Amino acid sequence: MHFVKVHGLGNDFVVVNAMTETLPADLPELARRVCHRYFGIGADGLVLLHKSDAADLRMQIINSDGSEPEMCGNAIRCVAKYAYEQNLVKKTKIQVETLAGIKIPELILENGAVKFIRVDMGEPILERAEIPMRGSAGRVLAEDLNVGNETFKVTAVSMGNPHCLIFVDEAVSFPVSLIGPQIEIHEVFPRKTNVEFIEVLNRREVKMKVWERGAGETMACGTGACATVVAAVLNGLTERQVTVHLTGGDLLIEWADNNHVYMTGPAEEVFAGSYKL
Amino acid sequence: MHFVKVHGLGNDFVVVNAMTETLPADLPELARRVCHRYFGIGADGLVLLHKSDAADLRMQIINSDGSEPEMCGNAIRCVAKYAYEQNLVKKTKIQVETLAGIKIPELILENGAVKFIRVDMGEPILERAEIPMRGSAGRVLAEDLNVGNETFKVTAVSMGNPHCLIFVDEAVSFPVSLIGPQIEIHEVFPRKTNVEFIEVLNRREVKMKVWERGAGETMACGTGACATVVAAVLNGLTERQVTVHLTGGDLLIEWADNNHVYMTGPAEEVFAGSYKL
Repeated sequence: MHFVKVHGLGNDFVVVNAMTETLPADLPELARRVCHRYFGIGADGLVLLHKSDAADLRMQIINSDGSEPEMCGNAIRCVAKYAYEQNLVKKTKIQVETLAGIKIPELILENGAVKFIRVDMGEPILERAEIPMRGSAGRVLAEDLNVGNETFKVTAVSMGNPHCLIFVDEAVSFPVSLIGPQIEIHEVFPRKTNVEFIEVLNRREVKMKVWERGAGETMACGTGACATVVAAVLNGLTERQVTVHLTGGDLLIEWADNNHVYMTGPAEEVFAGSYKL
Repeated sequence: MHFVKVHGLGNDFVVVNAMTETLPADLPELARRVCHRYFGIGADGLVLLHKSDAADLRMQIINSDGSEPEMCGNAIRCVAKYAYEQNLVKKTKIQVETLAGIKIPELILENGAVKFIRVDMGEPILERAEIPMRGSAGRVLAEDLNVGNETFKVTAVSMGNPHCLIFVDEAVSFPVSLIGPQIEIHEVFPRKTNVEFIEVLNRREVKMKVWERGAGETMACGTGACATVVAAVLNGLTERQVTVHLTGGDLLIEWADNNHVYMTGPAEEVFAGSYKL
């Protein structure tokens, strides 16, 4: 199986062109095997590219635990760069079908090489039932959530996948791996949730640490960065264009006047290889 | 840079033919970059194959932290398989120069494919000063060693690299990552040491967990498995041929009558690739 290993801010993926490679039927099992960091190639997820009737191509992500997220902002940047560099598409604005709808990454070139990828991540979903989160109708803004013996003020945003956002005094020292998993499986989130811990540095900069549903603490989460800025704006904490500092690097997020959220960041190819199925 | 990713019981290496690849001068930096599990290829170590005047080839191992161990039993099995399958040698008994002397892995074929690799790991070194360990002359057998508030009975063996061996009631639940690093840098070991925690199941089987110098807790350590059986025999706990169950799988170790220790185990190629330097 031919693959390319790519990462977006340290969130790393094995990308495979499923239109030309013959893959086994049990894809979750393949993902678990391929993603194993000692016995496999090692990655946070396996990304398969398929034909699409509705877009230029369809992206399927399978996490290292075999689960399938609706969408991943870091993966879609990697996919856009891969599709362009492997000549799967000939344009710099690419329609990618995902389980969270069609996303449109745009390549920003510098001397013919892909420097950054700007992704239209669509409109945030703020209505509680659609996130989905249990409780009475309306938005979820700085609402008390009991977690063990503690109470956190949470804001909830869906970017096609659910996010629970918490503003903290200091992100770096926050016990993400202790609190994150408890909120991920909290009963108020019927489809579980990603969890972000955000420190506001100023009105144009925040620091964020993320606990990803099905993946644990990771170095970066693209949809999480988008949800972070939406939550920060809704809580009156930042402007609409904000640099989000993640463990793996920076993303520039803009919640534009057309209500779409745009994410701009890098993607890096690390190596290409051939894996024995 | 062309490479093959191989593992011996989950102890994984990026193997590069340094006779044909042009590498940067700063090899520790290359190893750190290549071994990074998110931004690089991901491995416990980088293994370079060089020409040798004294043997069929010379193996250089650089750990993920940039340090250079004398020898690694899992790596040498991987190297033997790689050298044979890549046609660097045309025989099944291969002389490999290492910082711990010349080792002689032997390929055990099944239907023309490499099934196991049996390695003559040489003679154990038992004299305290040569391990090296501080203290009065002689062997180190079930000797008290103070670590924090605890005292462990330790046996010390060198297989070209130092090992501190401790027999415990239960290996699986032992706090390896707590005790291991304290012994690794204990003042009695002037060149630091690997640390093994061993549970004797019967006279032909033991379970072992390892804390590797410069690498931390790993799934398997070949020289550690050899040192384990030497220590078990010296303490009257096992026969001279013993299966060592490691987290990553099994090794068959024999301390033969000629005083040489033979290690038999597998090596698996996971993928081949090309990495942008």
